[in-house]
Amino acid sequence: MGVLHESFGLRTSRRLEIRDITNEIAGILKKANIKNGLINVFTRHSTSGIVINENESRLIKDFENALKSLIPSDRNYLHNAIDNNADSHIRAFYVGSSETIPVENGSMNLGTWQSVFFVELDGPRSRKVMVTVIGE
Amino acid sequence: MGVLHESFGLRTSRRLEIRDITNEIAGILKKANIKNGLINVFTRHSTSGIVINENESRLIKDFENALKSLIPSDRNYLHNAIDNNADSHIRAFYVGSSETIPVENGSMNLGTWQSVFFVELDGPRSRKVMVTVIGE
Amino acid sequence: MGVLHESFGLRTSRRLEIRDITNEIAGILKKANIKNGLINVFTRHSTSGIVINENESRLIKDFENALKSLIPSDRNYLHNAIDNNADSHIRAFYVGSSETIPVENGSMNLGTWQSVFFVELDGPRSRKVMVTVIGE
Repeated sequence: MGVLHESFGLRTSRRLEIRDITNEIAGILKKANIKNGLINVFTRHSTSGIVINENESRLIKDFENALKSLIPSDRNYLHNAIDNNADSHIRAFYVGSSETIPVENGSMNLGTWQSVFFVELDGPRSRKVMVTVIGE
Repeated sequence: MGVLHESFGLRTSRRLEIRDITNEIAGILKKANIKNGLINVFTRHSTSGIVINENESRLIKDFENALKSLIPSDRNYLHNAIDNNADSHIRAFYVGSSETIPVENGSMNLGTWQSVFFVELDGPRSRKVMVTVIGE
Repeated sequence: MGVLHESFGLRTSRRLEIRDITNEIAGILKKANIKNGLINVFTRHSTSGIVINENESRLIKDFENALKSLIPSDRNYLHNAIDNNADSHIRAFYVGSSETIPVENGSMNLGTWQSVFFVELDGPRSRKVMVTVIGE
């Protein structure tokens, strides 16, 4: 049994941007000498999230539109008196900070239509994603 | 320390269906020779989710109605030009693909009123749920 | 490799209350002889949740208001015929029952602006939070 920690950076280019990070995570997993266990993908930024779904460009636009319509930007949020990004934090509250995925035979056991996404909610920014593999 | 992977299938019968899978997961855990650690329940389908809450039939109907009202089906989603299930994907985006639960003395440490649910969002379909136990 | 389970209690004072529990979790982690791995924070109550975000008092009020506005209390929920807290359960459905966080060099690898919160959705009540550390 063992544990591997590794992180990678990414630079987002829009305020709300859903970015496929499956390949970056798979690359880290390949370097870990762990065949079976779990992989945890974690964002250290409270205006971002991690989500698993299908990578289809129109669907990604639908996800972005749904975030905007469920948590609108033009409300009188109290936090905006300090920093004008309450909408970003509230959206992150619902997206969640991590995903934990099975590792089987050295690979993430994702379904055919599943990708792992970094959800930027207050970009453009430089971000860091933490990957932890635990297993044997 | 060790790792056990096992999956089970289920057949859903409605488009939106919240199904209690606690017994199936507990059955897999019983076969694992792991007394203490974590159990991860993961769906490999991007139009479904995993959630923990109370199994009360009227409440489950409330969950289904809330999903329909928060993310309505009758919107002009862009993905519907490809596959007419954007609502299913967007609902899955908010439900989440997995839950990770403590294992103590060989059992899931769920509260009295907690059950684990598979959330079907684009049924009826045949689905597969992945269970990973890690611990000692 | 090893596993540590420990829980702590808290008493909430309002119906909807978002409470920072980072210090309680860090205190448990300090006692575990585990330097690298994962820590799982789990609530055993189906009208509460666990979330990670920024601890800023006005923002926390925004989170509370967003929960109230996304899932209103004054709907004809079916579960209310049994127990008048369907809104609490539905809010918990979206918040989620747990978070899993990397442990590196004996500490949670949270970002500068991240705290772990217990989300009370049907208080005031006495609650219990389960903490599981797994690693080496």
